[in-house]
Amino acid sequence: MIRIGISGYGNLGRGVELAVRQNPDMELAAVFTRRDPSSLKILTEGVPVYSLSDAAAHKDEIDVLIICGGSANDLPTQTPELAKYFNVVDSFDTHAKVPQHFANVDAAAKESGHTAIISVGWDPGLFSLARVISDSVLPEGASYTFWGRGVSQGHSDAIRRIEGVADARQYTVPVPEALAKVRAGETPEFTARQMHTRECYVVAKEGADKARIENEIKTMPNYFEPYDTTVHFISQEELDRDHKGIPHGGSVIRTGKTAGGMNHVVEFSLKLDSNPEFTSSVLAAFARAIYRFNSEGNTGCKTIFDVPPAYLSPKSAEELRAHML
Amino acid sequence: MIRIGISGYGNLGRGVELAVRQNPDMELAAVFTRRDPSSLKILTEGVPVYSLSDAAAHKDEIDVLIICGGSANDLPTQTPELAKYFNVVDSFDTHAKVPQHFANVDAAAKESGHTAIISVGWDPGLFSLARVISDSVLPEGASYTFWGRGVSQGHSDAIRRIEGVADARQYTVPVPEALAKVRAGETPEFTARQMHTRECYVVAKEGADKARIENEIKTMPNYFEPYDTTVHFISQEELDRDHKGIPHGGSVIRTGKTAGGMNHVVEFSLKLDSNPEFTSSVLAAFARAIYRFNSEGNTGCKTIFDVPPAYLSPKSAEELRAHML
Repeated sequence: MIRIGISGYGNLGRGVELAVRQNPDMELAAVFTRRDPSSLKILTEGVPVYSLSDAAAHKDEIDVLIICGGSANDLPTQTPELAKYFNVVDSFDTHAKVPQHFANVDAAAKESGHTAIISVGWDPGLFSLARVISDSVLPEGASYTFWGRGVSQGHSDAIRRIEGVADARQYTVPVPEALAKVRAGETPEFTARQMHTRECYVVAKEGADKARIENEIKTMPNYFEPYDTTVHFISQEELDRDHKGIPHGGSVIRTGKTAGGMNHVVEFSLKLDSNPEFTSSVLAAFARAIYRFNSEGNTGCKTIFDVPPAYLSPKSAEELRAHML
Repeated sequence: MIRIGISGYGNLGRGVELAVRQNPDMELAAVFTRRDPSSLKILTEGVPVYSLSDAAAHKDEIDVLIICGGSANDLPTQTPELAKYFNVVDSFDTHAKVPQHFANVDAAAKESGHTAIISVGWDPGLFSLARVISDSVLPEGASYTFWGRGVSQGHSDAIRRIEGVADARQYTVPVPEALAKVRAGETPEFTARQMHTRECYVVAKEGADKARIENEIKTMPNYFEPYDTTVHFISQEELDRDHKGIPHGGSVIRTGKTAGGMNHVVEFSLKLDSNPEFTSSVLAAFARAIYRFNSEGNTGCKTIFDVPPAYLSPKSAEELRAHML
């Protein structure tokens, strides 16, 4: 049994707790939290909750620690620090800072003899895999990533920071015509506006100026200005009733030509009812891979590009060859 | 530069020759044939053509040999024999005989210090990868493989063996309603008939009994009897004009639930204008991986499940992390 630890008990941490139950070779060994451990009630009976500041004392109780923190403030310090004591998995998703984060985690993991993997989930994660594999098998072509229809937490937060906004939910939506073109094997060059639209559901505070809020959303640089954005004002009740879920998904598509001039389209797509639950489930599978790497003495920081797919599966190599090939 | 050799110069061998041109780190070093080498005119100038029976004499000229033979009669003997002298890649696709073929190739490659990979292509191949990855990240669910719309060479050949048939082309077609159900997240149990239909375009010899031919096709066990099959009699001219291509493709779909009860759909799909050209392109990418394995002293037989995706790409690990994650 692989003894899994969870650091951070929000949506993602709870998702990992549930995912462990679906994997017959894993058990939950401990949850670490920055809150008062006695205040935290987890779903699994009999599993201890420890203070994150005491984590090092429990290093022998855990085979792989899945770090469920935020990429902006938590993971850049937590993952290298915890890699001193544990094999670790994180879902770091600030693309531009991956090389620095990788270097920090790699140094900590190598020095302590642990194995780490960063940026696991679906994007970065399974979508990154799809990009590398489809680029490699179709060297001449163009690659596209479409996201949605799904909730963008970052864009929803950006709306909530506007004065007069009580709550908000933002959906990223691929433009159907753009998707259709790429799936038909064309290789267009798109602007951001041509690939995605943004749908906003906003609860305004009483007396707030809705026209100003709508204008502030639509003109927000980077987040909304480069897109066709629609804003719907709704009540808190409607938001809670109709927009409670955190669905997401999308498609990585590569269209390319082989050297004989023939066209090919490779597509990997996801349709997820719960972004954090699916991400958690991916984290659990990669925890298995990291456990195996470390058992073989393969230490340091890895990414999803370094993992042989067989390492993700509880099945043996013989079973995979006989039944899955 | 990785020096690629090709054994067997049919559709697949020619496809590999073309694929090598799209990969900046590869060059074609030699072609091996069972025919008289002087009778073979290949597309690439200045590359030698050797008799396959002399292959061992040229072992130092080749880094990876891609074996483009048939699974029924060629590969079971050729791949283990050639693995004594070369790092090898094949596209062995007789699913039931994979364990035996793997054992034979593994023994030969280990003894000679070479690296081999078998069953590379899209199914077995990229579809197998999609099955293992999606099973691993969604342990509770159901997996489906739909093939087509595309030409099945085996089914076309089976029709051609019927008395009175001059030529034939068979398309495997997924049932749209079945695809739609699975994509909607349902987990139905299908019979073969419910997942695929078979469309046959047949050229009858002059005076042949078309009703008998149609009946023989539709009642042929395993090949056609378990499916709804339609038979269209056309002229040789129509067949040559409208059914010349060898398109194929399909989808691997897994629908599953995470432990919180949420539904997720993972799909990997291909739409290929030329089955052999795309397969060749996949073979070339995996030749790169096998070359790297062997350079690292990692010998013996591998499958697609053993290959870290980074090994498929000509890009460095740093580039992949910075730009593809």
